[in-house]
Amino acid sequence: MTHERIVILAHEKFPERAKTALGVMRYGDQSVEAVLDRDRPGERVHDHVPDIDDAPIVSSFSDAYEAADGDVDALYIGIAPIGGGFDESWRDDVRAAIESGCDVVSGLHYFLNDDEELSRLAAEHGVELRDVREPHDDLTVATGSSADVDARVVCTVGTDCSVGKMTASLEIVETARERGIDAAFVPTGQTGIMIAGWGNPIDRVISDFTAGAVEEMILELGDDHDLLVVEGQGSIIHPAYSAVTCGILHGSMADGLVLCHAAGREVVHGYESFDLPPVPEYVELYERLAAPVHETAVVAGALNTKDVDDGDAAAEAVEAYSTDVGVPSADPVRDGADRIVDGIVDEVLDG
Amino acid sequence: MTHERIVILAHEKFPERAKTALGVMRYGDQSVEAVLDRDRPGERVHDHVPDIDDAPIVSSFSDAYEAADGDVDALYIGIAPIGGGFDESWRDDVRAAIESGCDVVSGLHYFLNDDEELSRLAAEHGVELRDVREPHDDLTVATGSSADVDARVVCTVGTDCSVGKMTASLEIVETARERGIDAAFVPTGQTGIMIAGWGNPIDRVISDFTAGAVEEMILELGDDHDLLVVEGQGSIIHPAYSAVTCGILHGSMADGLVLCHAAGREVVHGYESFDLPPVPEYVELYERLAAPVHETAVVAGALNTKDVDDGDAAAEAVEAYSTDVGVPSADPVRDGADRIVDGIVDEVLDG
Repeated sequence: MTHERIVILAHEKFPERAKTALGVMRYGDQSVEAVLDRDRPGERVHDHVPDIDDAPIVSSFSDAYEAADGDVDALYIGIAPIGGGFDESWRDDVRAAIESGCDVVSGLHYFLNDDEELSRLAAEHGVELRDVREPHDDLTVATGSSADVDARVVCTVGTDCSVGKMTASLEIVETARERGIDAAFVPTGQTGIMIAGWGNPIDRVISDFTAGAVEEMILELGDDHDLLVVEGQGSIIHPAYSAVTCGILHGSMADGLVLCHAAGREVVHGYESFDLPPVPEYVELYERLAAPVHETAVVAGALNTKDVDDGDAAAEAVEAYSTDVGVPSADPVRDGADRIVDGIVDEVLDG
Repeated sequence: MTHERIVILAHEKFPERAKTALGVMRYGDQSVEAVLDRDRPGERVHDHVPDIDDAPIVSSFSDAYEAADGDVDALYIGIAPIGGGFDESWRDDVRAAIESGCDVVSGLHYFLNDDEELSRLAAEHGVELRDVREPHDDLTVATGSSADVDARVVCTVGTDCSVGKMTASLEIVETARERGIDAAFVPTGQTGIMIAGWGNPIDRVISDFTAGAVEEMILELGDDHDLLVVEGQGSIIHPAYSAVTCGILHGSMADGLVLCHAAGREVVHGYESFDLPPVPEYVELYERLAAPVHETAVVAGALNTKDVDDGDAAAEAVEAYSTDVGVPSADPVRDGADRIVDGIVDEVLDG
């Protein structure tokens, strides 16, 4: 899946509720020719998000295709309704994309390939429907060999879901590359996979293959880079998703961990009767749980301060968090990832 | 799936390499009318395993059906080749069972329902092909409500795979019932499911649903019993399977844990480059990892001493293990589960 010029569907949700679209626009190598949002035709991306590449916002794929003079490789579905279903109001756009010879990339729970009309149409037009949430068929159990690759491996882990593990991972890779480190991102979730253009959707694989699906990616990339940054998922004490977290932790055999947290988060997101333990307890739990498979340590912290309005307060929160974690920390979006990469360089690359 | 009178297929593997067959014979409520092993026709179960119900060993399903005067409900596949495939040499027996109006129950990775001939034949004869390793379609993420049921919940956890967690769970349930405790077994693996006649195969569910698939079973049974014993899987530091273990730990929200170990085991089974940590480290890891979701403690130990020939040496090993774990321990097969149930009664039911 290599697409150079893409259109992103984000109907009625751009930009606030279009996380996938924004992720691809901010971190992907693809050039975004247009965003589809039928509520905002005539506006531009820069009217809403000034710090990413600009593009027109249009009502339909046909309009986008015209605006790009037909030079488009793919349509990406950049939003997800609750439940991950396919919204029938998108069908005309998807149909138009296929008929224009474009691939369609989707991270929905609903697989486009299972849609009779769309899969028939795609076959007719020789384009690919890429359901990034559908694991491939050859996954199997881990062999315990992730540590054998040439690259050093860092994994982002979290105190909870939705604290910014993907963003931290991508910012770390970007900053490391700016310093001349040959770093690569190892995606584990649908947005990360759409950004990177490859990867296993770990939360959808058979539970027995959780670690194995991570290991497969590390073995694929590990001898071609100096640093791999594995996107973590969930948290090791999450009432529902800890299995995914644990499989990624052991499957990655990481040499260092970056502990991600959201400022002010005190209870599990969506599971508010469960308190988050203190940050130092996470550090110890992650390290001790990982150790029998591969010795590791938390080498940096990433604090997501997007809900802290005031810059000084955010800086204070990062400082307090750094003390809690006991290692260099930063908000990778507000501060950049330099301090985090410092920790990785000192403890993992030079350590 | 309630079968009263069954035949078990164990060709060329009875009894040593027929773990599933032996498990069903030892712990299931089903009456076993015959065992199929084409290497041992004319012998009897008691020639090899004296402490379970006796039954004839015959060469084919037809012979078994005749010996049982046609009073058979189902054929159980009691063995699994490496890889979990279907051995074509079994096809005649499976075909004969279906044609005799019997259900066929299988824990193979290869699903009988995906076999064109067998599924067509089953439809024709109105019988069920039950692939216990195929999860049902309605599984979803955990809600964190397992602790809300009336029953107290105990989970067997392990230092490794294949240390006797299923056996310990079943022995605990049996011993608890003998003491008048209304206990029920919550199966999580294919043999446990074949024994119990229901259950979710946790190692085959989507990783996001691991805890949810355990929770579903606890909610289903939890208000009808006083004690649920959840069959654990793998180990929390297993290089390949820890995700499954972690999901069961958090999904069960157990009030007490029984730590299972095999005497003499020092490295991970099948992953010999990984050392097992000391037993007290497991105790702390399991307890601390579980605590943020549901406070719990290791309340008893189960040591599998089947590889210790001498009775005195086994007793010594159990004693040493009990010291390591810091709670009452026993080999539930050699000693019975009384000391284990003591720990559960003291710390979980009365505690």
